[in-house]
Amino acid sequence: MGDLGIDDIRALLSAKPRPVGWPARRARIEEVGAAWPAAPDILLESISIDGMPAEWSRAPGSDPSRALIFFHGGGYCSGSIVSHRRMATEAGRAARARTLAIAFRLAPEHPFPAAYDDALTTWRFLREQGFHAKHIAVGGDSAGGGLTLALLMRLRDLNEALPACAWLVSPWTDLTLSGETLTTKDSVDPLLHRSYLEELAQAYAPQGVDRRDPRVSALFGDFTGLPPLIVQVGSNETLLADSTRLAAVAGAADVSVTLEVWPRMIHAWHLWNARLEDGRRALAHAGAFMQARFSAIDS
Amino acid sequence: MGDLGIDDIRALLSAKPRPVGWPARRARIEEVGAAWPAAPDILLESISIDGMPAEWSRAPGSDPSRALIFFHGGGYCSGSIVSHRRMATEAGRAARARTLAIAFRLAPEHPFPAAYDDALTTWRFLREQGFHAKHIAVGGDSAGGGLTLALLMRLRDLNEALPACAWLVSPWTDLTLSGETLTTKDSVDPLLHRSYLEELAQAYAPQGVDRRDPRVSALFGDFTGLPPLIVQVGSNETLLADSTRLAAVAGAADVSVTLEVWPRMIHAWHLWNARLEDGRRALAHAGAFMQARFSAIDS
Repeated sequence: MGDLGIDDIRALLSAKPRPVGWPARRARIEEVGAAWPAAPDILLESISIDGMPAEWSRAPGSDPSRALIFFHGGGYCSGSIVSHRRMATEAGRAARARTLAIAFRLAPEHPFPAAYDDALTTWRFLREQGFHAKHIAVGGDSAGGGLTLALLMRLRDLNEALPACAWLVSPWTDLTLSGETLTTKDSVDPLLHRSYLEELAQAYAPQGVDRRDPRVSALFGDFTGLPPLIVQVGSNETLLADSTRLAAVAGAADVSVTLEVWPRMIHAWHLWNARLEDGRRALAHAGAFMQARFSAIDS
Repeated sequence: MGDLGIDDIRALLSAKPRPVGWPARRARIEEVGAAWPAAPDILLESISIDGMPAEWSRAPGSDPSRALIFFHGGGYCSGSIVSHRRMATEAGRAARARTLAIAFRLAPEHPFPAAYDDALTTWRFLREQGFHAKHIAVGGDSAGGGLTLALLMRLRDLNEALPACAWLVSPWTDLTLSGETLTTKDSVDPLLHRSYLEELAQAYAPQGVDRRDPRVSALFGDFTGLPPLIVQVGSNETLLADSTRLAAVAGAADVSVTLEVWPRMIHAWHLWNARLEDGRRALAHAGAFMQARFSAIDS
């Protein structure tokens, strides 16, 4: 099978009607994992972290002392280890690290702070396994990017050691939906529109949770002291402004920020890396960034 | 002489009173060139482009078929080939390309469109020398970054071939001075404050020139079709928002944008690369970016 262009991916996405309701949405995103499996040379190992399903992956040549924690996207309401396996495992290959993908609890059954707490549980598990904090990178796409930032701020507030860096793909950082690209990019984004995001936000942060709380909308948080961030976002995303505003506020807080805007790419395009060159290139950039941050502490 | 930290650079900058008036300001920035000369292995050649002074540089091992045009900073009113020689020549080394630094005409004696026209003259000179457009990168710091963007937009509007990429250090993209970091970073920026920038803007864009004209304030221009941009800015700059807003608007226009925010760095810190590690690291990032963009067209 040859490579595809982003328009081919768009065609695949629009070939089926949009799913309605959580079960159908969850089933749809699971199809991604079935259609785009991990490469045959990836070693997988299922584990349980206090009852939470998780999965180690290793590509040949990766350094077993380094790890990438991966939080999948899906709006805190869908997505899984399987749906994002191709993306997570190839990110580990690019970073020359193991990956640890986790199945944090999903809304609406488990609203905030379930995922937020599961992220901390994952971090502590990895530290208890003996990984040096500076040998760990944390990352994720979409809601997983927001969850990554929330974890970093929590560790900072707890005065715990921080990871080497974080990798954020098309992160959802603002559950108040105040970014102007929600409107200006609506017609070119094949996946995320305001009404759907509104449903997701209501599910994860139901009545009683302020959507401006930085634990659910990291954009409004204090970035002081966070480790280096690499942020990758497509230009054809309604969430573009969630990344550009993130870069502005994190940079202003003296955080090392690398923001990459990828022309014509769609939300979390890394998912299609098996047949999308820009997905592989973006993973290579992220992997080089993580490797450099891991390395920095050895010298 | 050992390496310095950014606080040492700050101390050097604050050791003398701020110069008043154009002659004193110009003399002060010239001191940078005297104190921080080019490395001894750099080959320099002075030329004239239609009467405009210019300078070729080459580091050992650079590819003579590739060139970086460098537009120096200084608010369109000061700066020279000499003041920015260390920065320009080391950028060429990092990019493995020749550099062509030019002494465009300065305001207030020569307001807009003098520099704007000199930039086009430079581009056309290089093309007439036989350089492939895709073997040319264009870049500069501060006002030179704004001039770079104005040149790109002009070439795009003229339907001329575009360079491989552009490199922008602490670019001044908004002569209306509407960025919020003009205020929020005022106390931590040792170099640029609103009153000085206001003087520069008045000198380059005097009465009759709309400061929102994209030819003087690229931020308000149309970025469609521009080549890949790498933008590097310090977190301790009043012009930080000139970069973060640039990344947002260029990215939204489907331009490939890489934005790097460097913690605690000050305006155009690359100038001090001879003894500042973060200056050398930033040049290495920019050089790798340019090399990759040059290379892409050979394959």
